[in-house]
Amino acid sequence: MTKPVDGRKRVVIEGVDPEIDAGRFPIKRIVGDSVRIEANVFGDGHDRVVCYLLFRRKDEAPLRVKMESLGNDRWQASFRVNRQGEYFYAIVGSVDHFGTWRSDLMKRLEAGQDVALELQTGGILVEQVAKRAKGEDAIQLSEWARILRTKSGDEDTKVVALDAKLAATMERYPDTDLETKYERELRVVVDRNKARFSSWYEMFPRSCSAIPGKHGTFQDAEARLEYVAGMGFDVLYLPPIHPIGQSFRKGKNNSVTAETGDVGSPWAIGSHLGGHTSIHPELGTLDDFKRLEARAKDFGLEMAMDIAFQCSPDHPWVKEHPSWFKHRADGSIQYAENPPKKYQDIYPLDFESEDWSELWDALKGVFVFWIEQGVRIFRVDNPHTKAFLFWEWAIAEIKRDHEDVLFLAEAFTRPRVMERLAKLGFSQSYTYFTWRNTKPEITEYLEQLMRTEIKEYFRPNFWPNTPDILPESLQIDGKAAFVSRLVLAGTLGTNYGIYGPAFELLENVPAKPGGEEYLNSEKYELKQWDIVAQRSLTAVIRLVNQARRENAALQMNHELFFHTTDNPYLICYSKRSAEGDNTVLVVVNLDPFHVQAGWVELDLNRLGLNPREPFQLHDQLADKRYLWQGSRNYVELSPFEIPAHVMRVMRRVRTEKDFDYYL
Amino acid sequence: MTKPVDGRKRVVIEGVDPEIDAGRFPIKRIVGDSVRIEANVFGDGHDRVVCYLLFRRKDEAPLRVKMESLGNDRWQASFRVNRQGEYFYAIVGSVDHFGTWRSDLMKRLEAGQDVALELQTGGILVEQVAKRAKGEDAIQLSEWARILRTKSGDEDTKVVALDAKLAATMERYPDTDLETKYERELRVVVDRNKARFSSWYEMFPRSCSAIPGKHGTFQDAEARLEYVAGMGFDVLYLPPIHPIGQSFRKGKNNSVTAETGDVGSPWAIGSHLGGHTSIHPELGTLDDFKRLEARAKDFGLEMAMDIAFQCSPDHPWVKEHPSWFKHRADGSIQYAENPPKKYQDIYPLDFESEDWSELWDALKGVFVFWIEQGVRIFRVDNPHTKAFLFWEWAIAEIKRDHEDVLFLAEAFTRPRVMERLAKLGFSQSYTYFTWRNTKPEITEYLEQLMRTEIKEYFRPNFWPNTPDILPESLQIDGKAAFVSRLVLAGTLGTNYGIYGPAFELLENVPAKPGGEEYLNSEKYELKQWDIVAQRSLTAVIRLVNQARRENAALQMNHELFFHTTDNPYLICYSKRSAEGDNTVLVVVNLDPFHVQAGWVELDLNRLGLNPREPFQLHDQLADKRYLWQGSRNYVELSPFEIPAHVMRVMRRVRTEKDFDYYL
Repeated sequence: MTKPVDGRKRVVIEGVDPEIDAGRFPIKRIVGDSVRIEANVFGDGHDRVVCYLLFRRKDEAPLRVKMESLGNDRWQASFRVNRQGEYFYAIVGSVDHFGTWRSDLMKRLEAGQDVALELQTGGILVEQVAKRAKGEDAIQLSEWARILRTKSGDEDTKVVALDAKLAATMERYPDTDLETKYERELRVVVDRNKARFSSWYEMFPRSCSAIPGKHGTFQDAEARLEYVAGMGFDVLYLPPIHPIGQSFRKGKNNSVTAETGDVGSPWAIGSHLGGHTSIHPELGTLDDFKRLEARAKDFGLEMAMDIAFQCSPDHPWVKEHPSWFKHRADGSIQYAENPPKKYQDIYPLDFESEDWSELWDALKGVFVFWIEQGVRIFRVDNPHTKAFLFWEWAIAEIKRDHEDVLFLAEAFTRPRVMERLAKLGFSQSYTYFTWRNTKPEITEYLEQLMRTEIKEYFRPNFWPNTPDILPESLQIDGKAAFVSRLVLAGTLGTNYGIYGPAFELLENVPAKPGGEEYLNSEKYELKQWDIVAQRSLTAVIRLVNQARRENAALQMNHELFFHTTDNPYLICYSKRSAEGDNTVLVVVNLDPFHVQAGWVELDLNRLGLNPREPFQLHDQLADKRYLWQGSRNYVELSPFEIPAHVMRVMRRVRTEKDFDYYL
Repeated sequence: MTKPVDGRKRVVIEGVDPEIDAGRFPIKRIVGDSVRIEANVFGDGHDRVVCYLLFRRKDEAPLRVKMESLGNDRWQASFRVNRQGEYFYAIVGSVDHFGTWRSDLMKRLEAGQDVALELQTGGILVEQVAKRAKGEDAIQLSEWARILRTKSGDEDTKVVALDAKLAATMERYPDTDLETKYERELRVVVDRNKARFSSWYEMFPRSCSAIPGKHGTFQDAEARLEYVAGMGFDVLYLPPIHPIGQSFRKGKNNSVTAETGDVGSPWAIGSHLGGHTSIHPELGTLDDFKRLEARAKDFGLEMAMDIAFQCSPDHPWVKEHPSWFKHRADGSIQYAENPPKKYQDIYPLDFESEDWSELWDALKGVFVFWIEQGVRIFRVDNPHTKAFLFWEWAIAEIKRDHEDVLFLAEAFTRPRVMERLAKLGFSQSYTYFTWRNTKPEITEYLEQLMRTEIKEYFRPNFWPNTPDILPESLQIDGKAAFVSRLVLAGTLGTNYGIYGPAFELLENVPAKPGGEEYLNSEKYELKQWDIVAQRSLTAVIRLVNQARRENAALQMNHELFFHTTDNPYLICYSKRSAEGDNTVLVVVNLDPFHVQAGWVELDLNRLGLNPREPFQLHDQLADKRYLWQGSRNYVELSPFEIPAHVMRVMRRVRTEKDFDYYL
């Protein structure tokens, strides 16, 4: 083993947290977040060490923050990320010679030892630093050094030695020569707030026509914006809007033979009219699309576009770039399969193509095209069936030029694959929430997402339903299930979404028993939705979204905590804002058929509450107020009303006049 | 972001375990161990993946082991390390095109689909592999390919397609072109068995003289070998044997003024007679030392040498290399301090010396010198007060040339520092065992050492006492405490040691109340030990060492498991051998003053026992046999006898003649 360049570096830095896969992947944060970093830092022997967190925005010089000891050789420091884009952090540490000398001096003085020689030694340390100090500091340090070296016998000199100003000045000129630098510089990707806090509404524009049986257009969708915004959503997500293939077009209810007039699946992308950068003519023109986007913006709705990298047999790429597809022994292009199932209306792209590099460019080009049309949020369909290396490259490329672009991974697949996609750069991810119904299921899953390292890079987006998934609970549990799933999604997750109007209109009939496809699914036909129907959940949706907007606690995940209840159907949890000034307590009845009552056992510490003071709970859904005290409190929730409390926790504030109120 | 060289590599490898600090440090194993490696390996989409563990001895070509799926994208494989030295391991993975094709074909056949075209596609796959296959395989594969391509209509061809021989032949020629290789090659340091299983006896040769008041010699120590070996130890560790300084020599009981005739501390190394490569003349000559070594070997005892890198003011290095020491403001050399305490008889080495590189060479030279005299085990005194980088370099250098050299780190310091020294290369480490007395203390500490990642690189060595530490429990708890601490050390730890004869002679008087130093410590004076005293624990020590030698379970740590008992003073645990053919169950009474009885609740699964079968326990200390059945069993242990059971677990073996015995 060859010797190191400088064997005198005596400090060790290890156990840096967070650090994902040895720095292979960045952690994720939101503009304005404080990034807290911990590490083990220590030296040999008894000398004190000093360490600094170095952080920098990409292309900027690093700043230093002194780290604080947490005991047991663990140190921490934080930095704030004020802009979108990439930040980097690293840690340096060294033996703190002056600090050691100063602390030893105090012990010697306390023991009544003669310190004349030690004061002189300190003078030498100060003199060395004076040489690299600047301006006034240099003059000051030289003077201190002179006193320590020449007047070490005077009583006063002891006071000079321990002067806090001397210590502070010395600290401004750390000796970087013998600093150990942590092996790796680590990365943070900083996104705008919508990456962490967003309320999605998925809607098929083709079903927005006011005239029964008529193909809806972007203009019809415009007329629906007020409705969507009125419920409090802030992302409007449209399924693919491209020309739909004719070959092997699917009929109603996914029939393999389409009837004349069947509109086909929007995910069978591409026809002679164009591919991924074209618009299905029946929806309108690119200008219509851009007007819809602009109008949506006026309503506080950002458009999210569906990117599904697959082609109908009629897609222009099939003829233009046959090498991007896999071929069968007879030379025909391989359609999608999951043997024995065949999906002959879809050609997957071949990421093992010899022309992979050209293919990557084209796919990236699709994103770039829509970014140029103003789109900044992409919901990516089945990213797990495309090459991982491609996503890493494409997302990095796009975010380099457009830091505000967000990607939602629609990968309903195995955990390691979902996590990997998030690590590779997806800003948000679909989750298993859709199938987590019981208290233990929900608790275990959420603790995994929000208490393990996964929280550093995986931002969950919770969907009670999607056009592909009508979960069993919604099929059989009735309205109460829709409401409780809505409340859970909207309060457990900072990002959530519904597929409407199917959701608010309580659509619950599956195509076949035991399946999760909708009967008469909008994926294969036009629908006419009676959005003003009496049964609609718009009112409660509005309340949930309002509670989300008004409570910072519901816009963050890190302080999610599950409190104990004595009833397995009652789930209780709280969230707190990063600043600790907003706390929300949620209780949901998971039984859609019966009134459930029981006692919740609150961890008052987590809620920042004093066990001896009453506190007020303001239910944001029912607009009722409750006065509670102590950890044990009674709850009763009926599935026949709103089966959930979403309660802002308000502490008692005492006024001078003994007139209390709650805030 | 630039594109990768080949974007077609579709497989991901991550989450490799074990891997220490992103591969910065090796894991440790013993010759003959099986090294089990796990990793997450997966690709995009639905294709099957195949992955291999690559392992190699340093300077040899890697071998491939196919990894097995554990489910959920986790894979495992093992390899055996048959020699001392460094091994490396890595993981590669790729899409298994043939395996995917074969598995899909089975699904298609099951669904009754026409597979003619698929058979032809398979033929193409086989043809490609035939081109890189060798000899008979190439001919065979070409023939299979021909059948698949040209006879795809025949019924028989389906049978050919699924032929296991075809699959096996294909597997012999993996396509390495699109293989993903894990980012790092990881390291294993393989030591001889003594690194994991050793029984140490520490002894001052200068106290071995048969004549009272006379300075003992190596020759006197020779006469003591039979005694030490008779107790069953296999490592004989001597405190430093170098010339002892005169300046500031410590007197009896660590007095700052030595009387005439005071022998000084062996750790105050160096005089005009020499330093770290010299021998204290009163002990004998280098030849005497080598003869002691050889004689010890005859008794099955390997010598361990103490290496304490510090100098008395009289050490030759002080004059020869003043730059290796720190200097004070008046030019004098800085003695050791822990302010306000001063240790004027000791000069620490300065690892920030400008001449650090020369210093490193000299220190390494000390090890090399003694290695040339036959020493292969070094107990390193306070390694945590020397630079970490030095240890990493020195140990690597030494082990490169002498794979069988072992280092024990005597670092009684903070956890992260102790762990770091182990990571840097120390083969064994002293631990906090010395101060872990209660059931929760012992359980928590051992689970930390043997159930967390620490087990991969930190080999604990348990000492009930040392010349520096007479723990409180031995001071006040009497003989029962000596025995229970011995049994705990010898059965919880595969490596353990005692400082004798102080230990077996129940030496228990501290220099002052509340302290841990021995009164009239052998560190500062000659002692006369009455090794044949009636009270001596030699008999029970012999039994413990015999049980350790006879039970493979006690020579390994990974299967340590704590069973529940209903009495806080009764601790119960078991160990199993790697092969599972030897199991030992230990119960210790931690109360040195009272008989303790209670019920142990065995985890029979951990013991490999059938709840319906009786099993026999053979107590290796008392030579008694017990017949137990089921998980719940009664135990009673008296501090006035041997307060522990060390029991070999023997299962009932049924013979043909219905005559049962236990094995």
